[in-house]
Amino acid sequence: MTRVLRLTLAYDGTDFRGWADQRDPAIRTIEATLCDHLERVLRERPRLSVAGRTDAGVHSRGQVVSFTTSSGTRPDRIQKALNAALAPEIVVTEASWAPAGFDARLSATGREYRYVIDTAPVPDAFTSRFVWHRRAALHVPSMRTAASPLAGEHDFRSFCRHPGAGRSTIRKIDRLTIARDGHLVVVRLRANAFCHQMVRSIVGTLVRVGEGRLDPREVVRILAAGDRATTPNIAPARGLTLERVIYGRR
Amino acid sequence: MTRVLRLTLAYDGTDFRGWADQRDPAIRTIEATLCDHLERVLRERPRLSVAGRTDAGVHSRGQVVSFTTSSGTRPDRIQKALNAALAPEIVVTEASWAPAGFDARLSATGREYRYVIDTAPVPDAFTSRFVWHRRAALHVPSMRTAASPLAGEHDFRSFCRHPGAGRSTIRKIDRLTIARDGHLVVVRLRANAFCHQMVRSIVGTLVRVGEGRLDPREVVRILAAGDRATTPNIAPARGLTLERVIYGRR
Repeated sequence: MTRVLRLTLAYDGTDFRGWADQRDPAIRTIEATLCDHLERVLRERPRLSVAGRTDAGVHSRGQVVSFTTSSGTRPDRIQKALNAALAPEIVVTEASWAPAGFDARLSATGREYRYVIDTAPVPDAFTSRFVWHRRAALHVPSMRTAASPLAGEHDFRSFCRHPGAGRSTIRKIDRLTIARDGHLVVVRLRANAFCHQMVRSIVGTLVRVGEGRLDPREVVRILAAGDRATTPNIAPARGLTLERVIYGRR
Repeated sequence: MTRVLRLTLAYDGTDFRGWADQRDPAIRTIEATLCDHLERVLRERPRLSVAGRTDAGVHSRGQVVSFTTSSGTRPDRIQKALNAALAPEIVVTEASWAPAGFDARLSATGREYRYVIDTAPVPDAFTSRFVWHRRAALHVPSMRTAASPLAGEHDFRSFCRHPGAGRSTIRKIDRLTIARDGHLVVVRLRANAFCHQMVRSIVGTLVRVGEGRLDPREVVRILAAGDRATTPNIAPARGLTLERVIYGRR
């Protein structure tokens, strides 16, 4: 009998070359690291389905993975064994059996990312792994004006890297908020799904607006162009965190 | 003409073998790293006075150092050059000329440390470098009861490592508070000065009390014993941060 196991993962992506296993032991990825340890616990190498294939340097608080297994090892034991080996760099925050047919990627109806820009005069030694330090006065109201036309369903081709021939770049953004918290500017984005580097391209563009180097009205033009070359700036990976994955109604 | 320069430093001590220069290039310390870069900027190697000689793995938000220099390089340039080379691991948060006679160590009238224990069921990938993860229910009121007799002036020999023959271990604690913040328990300690490993010895002892493994009344006995062997536990360095140094009236 096989069952579906579901894990929720938090990780500091700084020292990983992203999620996806590169089939090369010299390239340290979250997926390969996790599979290596799961194999020891389950005595079989699982094939993981993942909700968000995070890039090199991107972090997670609520990544979700699933896999089918014939192992009878209890989820709490799997969690404990993985955390003993991998925490605190990768932490299994939840582990449970999922209903048959559950698939972390296919069942997900939404993903929520958070991007943090630190505008303080000097970097912060305590949070620097998780923020983009950019010594600049960001004008948040302009950023909000620029962001507003991105909400809703659009073809985000201009904000996608290598979408691949014939692959759709139509996505639906449910929520895009920008908040100031002291020296921090926090951008939150929720959508049904994101294409490659979409959050970082959007944030990079909004930061240009916030710095007064791009007119907020230009963002509509960039979106309409359907051409990645029009995107002015890609924000670095370090400030980006996959906050949570949504299943069921968003 | 020589002048006194004063720097305030924040650092992530995780990957350093403490503050003090070990005169060995293979041993990476905050002091040696800082001096190497100051030498490039000033074209002379400064002799640093430091307010708190933090141990390996201990962090700082408000360490203060001073040195005399004949260099005329402006403090803001020194700050900028150091941050360009060392941030975000070591960040110069302030740099200024100090009054003649100022000495970061001798002029300091107080030091404030903060120790954070994370009692959540699983570690936190985002804060783990700066907390002690200890999956235990800590009883904070008992910890406060145990801590109370430590306030004031006492001989802290029981809580000091290698005090050295003839060296006084009398210190005066002005403030010792323990607060709960969700899964975190935060201990703050302010004293005129601390002897070696004093904060970690006190925190380790208080955690034993919080876990119900040591009677709160035992702490008075440990203090009175004047013998390090009576201290039950030393908390690890990672949870400890030098928060600030006080000059003038405390």
